Amino acid sequence: IPTETERCIESLIAVFQKYAGKDGYNYTLSKTEFLSFMNTELAAFTRNQEDPDVLDRMMKKLDTNSDGQLDFSEFLNVTGGLATACHDSFLKAVPSQKWT
Amino acid sequence: IPTETERCIESLIAVFQKYAGKDGYNYTLSKTEFLSFMNTELAAFTRNQEDPDVLDRMMKKLDTNSDGQLDFSEFLNVTGGLATACHDSFLKAVPSQKWT
Repeated sequence: IPTETERCIESLIAVFQKYAGKDGYNYTLSKTEFLSFMNTELAAFTRNQEDPDVLDRMMKKLDTNSDGQLDFSEFLNVTGGLATACHDSFLKAVPSQKWT
Repeated sequence: IPTETERCIESLIAVFQKYAGKDGYNYTLSKTEFLSFMNTELAAFTRNQEDPDVLDRMMKKLDTNSDGQLDFSEFLNVTGGLATACHDSFLKAVPSQKWT
C-alpha cells in the first residue's frame, strides 16, 4: 500500500501528464493547458483572485526559461508555491512557538 | 469537494507538520525528524538505496541555508525531487514524442 506522500507524488505526476497531453508537445504545459489546469484543479484559488491577470503573471513567473511552456519542475512550483503560501498563513495564524 | 491537486497540497502540509512536530522547533524538520519521515513515508525509496549515506547527503543538499533544519520549502524539494526523478524515468521509458 503506498503511503499518502507516495500517493501525492504519483498524483502530481498524473495530473501534470493529463493536462500536458491536451495539445501540442505532450511533456509540457502550454499556456492554454496551464489555464485549463488552474481553472479546473485549482478553481477555488483561481476564482478567489481579484486580479484578472493573475494567471498570466503566474505563467510568466513560473516559465523560468521563458519558452512559453511549463515543464514538470516548473509545474511543481505552482503546487509548491501554493502549499508554501498555505503553510505560511498557518504559521501566521499560530505565531507561538512550542519547544519540547 | 477538493480536487486531487488540492488534496495533495493539504496532504503535503499535513505530513510536514506531523514530522516537524516530533521534536524541537515545531515548524522545521530536524535531521532526526527527516530520517523518521524518509524511513516511514518514503520507505520504499529509502530501502532501495544501496548507499547507506544517501539520507545524510540528501539532508545536506536539501538544507540550503545549512541550519541543520529543513523548513517547508526545503522539504518540498524532497517530494519535488523524487517526483521529477519518477517523471524523468517515465520520459526515458517513453521517448517518442506525440504532437497533435
